[in-house]
Amino acid sequence: MDQDHQFMELALKEAEKGRYQTWQNPMVGAVIVKNGQILATGYHHHFGENHAERDAISKLSPEQLSNSTLYVTLEPCCHYGKQPPCADLIVASHIKRVVIAQIDPHSLVTGKGIQRLKDAGIKVTLGVMTDEATHLNEFYSFFYQHQRPWITLKQAVSLDFKIGYPHQRTSITNQTVNDKVHAERSDYQAILIGSTTALVDDPTLHASEPSDFPPVRVVLDRQGRLADRSDLRLFSDQEVATWIFTKQPERFSSLPDHVKLLQTTGDISDIVKQLADAGIQSVYVEGGAKIHEAFWQSGMVDELLAYISPQFLGQNGISAFMPTSPYKFNDVSFQQLANNIRIEGKITHV
Amino acid sequence: MDQDHQFMELALKEAEKGRYQTWQNPMVGAVIVKNGQILATGYHHHFGENHAERDAISKLSPEQLSNSTLYVTLEPCCHYGKQPPCADLIVASHIKRVVIAQIDPHSLVTGKGIQRLKDAGIKVTLGVMTDEATHLNEFYSFFYQHQRPWITLKQAVSLDFKIGYPHQRTSITNQTVNDKVHAERSDYQAILIGSTTALVDDPTLHASEPSDFPPVRVVLDRQGRLADRSDLRLFSDQEVATWIFTKQPERFSSLPDHVKLLQTTGDISDIVKQLADAGIQSVYVEGGAKIHEAFWQSGMVDELLAYISPQFLGQNGISAFMPTSPYKFNDVSFQQLANNIRIEGKITHV
Repeated sequence: MDQDHQFMELALKEAEKGRYQTWQNPMVGAVIVKNGQILATGYHHHFGENHAERDAISKLSPEQLSNSTLYVTLEPCCHYGKQPPCADLIVASHIKRVVIAQIDPHSLVTGKGIQRLKDAGIKVTLGVMTDEATHLNEFYSFFYQHQRPWITLKQAVSLDFKIGYPHQRTSITNQTVNDKVHAERSDYQAILIGSTTALVDDPTLHASEPSDFPPVRVVLDRQGRLADRSDLRLFSDQEVATWIFTKQPERFSSLPDHVKLLQTTGDISDIVKQLADAGIQSVYVEGGAKIHEAFWQSGMVDELLAYISPQFLGQNGISAFMPTSPYKFNDVSFQQLANNIRIEGKITHV
Repeated sequence: MDQDHQFMELALKEAEKGRYQTWQNPMVGAVIVKNGQILATGYHHHFGENHAERDAISKLSPEQLSNSTLYVTLEPCCHYGKQPPCADLIVASHIKRVVIAQIDPHSLVTGKGIQRLKDAGIKVTLGVMTDEATHLNEFYSFFYQHQRPWITLKQAVSLDFKIGYPHQRTSITNQTVNDKVHAERSDYQAILIGSTTALVDDPTLHASEPSDFPPVRVVLDRQGRLADRSDLRLFSDQEVATWIFTKQPERFSSLPDHVKLLQTTGDISDIVKQLADAGIQSVYVEGGAKIHEAFWQSGMVDELLAYISPQFLGQNGISAFMPTSPYKFNDVSFQQLANNIRIEGKITHV
């Protein structure tokens, strides 16, 4: 492993420290090196706070920074957002070389940050651990490349492919899976369910990892079935925002402040567009079967997560969603969770 | 690990050498020890040949055998079968102590072999690695405890719980799984399919491990649909016996020598009884869905093997068997096979 690779790996580890707190910003890490010695590290701690480059640079004197090399996992920004441009700060710091893992897919930045550095005579190295850096911010990268959120369908099924019983809350997976799902939600910006799941399961849809930006709870309630159900946890629990997509907004009245009504045609494409317009980069679709089917048919699913519990629910169980067409998952991984199994399959869009 | 445990572990390894060749006999291993030194090892090589005890004893002189200790994975026999009783040979060899892992569940032997040794003044130690020895000959033990074969249902399903398409041979699992299934068949004494599978897939049902006792191919063909289909591999391939269970034996004529017709009521209990009467200790039921359902409803399934391939077959796929009642598998294991997964669930009979 060469030195560039080694320092970038450390920068990626720094970036990870920001997980769950950078929200709509990417996780980014930075390492400053001179004469083979690490002088400072930094990362983007929290949405709205210093970027990783500034976090690292702020720890050093002008003398230390002069002629140093900066390793950063994402192309430095060059526009005024919540923070002044990092590219300008790097130039002003007399850093002589910048090693970048991923070019920023955000159209306001792409290539422009690099150009700003080059224009100032800074040597720029690209392509070091690019895949790892892209993977780190998979949803962010996807969002800016495809102008829509990454969509994951998550289902919990029995060995006879049932997801529960009608009209009753059924948890068919074990506690290890349930904990995993609660943690997994934390990686997404929205958790989406249908009105039946809201009514039957009455979930809080909380994510377990502490964050100032927990995922928004989104309910697809075309017919306004939740209109008179202020007793549901999605309404009574005010910790997290609840968004209701409905064709019948007039049915709802006097909602709590944390609940937002969004009018929709009911088409998945309309809902996904509105989520994208709201800046939502990733959606974890928990079902039920009708919602999964609607998303699958929309062609906008990027990942399927199937949690399988080794049991039969029998003929009274509700079938999981049944796709109409064949599909082969090429990118698959498995994880055993006590006596359950998690199957992750990514969808290749051609 | 004490010495008894250590020598029994070696005896179990010896026993394993007989795998695929002992047929309706159990695999058995033996180790002869004197003054802490291993003098000889032996195992049951092949159905009809020397038992493990005789195999080991035959390698030593009377002087070596005198006052030695014999470790044997299964209770020595005491009746005349294809071989004279091992208990008598042990007594005649002046072995002073015998350590036994498993008491023979075969009713002709159970406890009698031990009694014969004790009556001759030989010290007998029981309970050393009993679980491991019982597991080694799981099907043999089950057969003599329950007077019927161990029954495993094996299915290959997609992520939408389909097993194939109608009227066409469909292999939905990968090559690693297909190899595994061919090897797994070698552990069973019969491979069972329904007439639809015979007609649509035209399988040979060969097992891949070399054996003089390959598993019998059993077809459940109640209506005699295979009567005019001498072109099928089950008829044209004469390497292995084919047994046809049918309600309509009169429909069949001029069958090759390797094919046997068995008249049945069509009930699974009748078929299982006839297989038990024929000495079949284990059946690997490959399907299709109707056969699996019939076996499941019979209450005589001991294990479910589900091979899952991460793909959807879509609405044209044939559904895997749907049990009517709920069931939870308590004893479950998983094995990843490239991009497929194997789920093994044992059934607890209460």
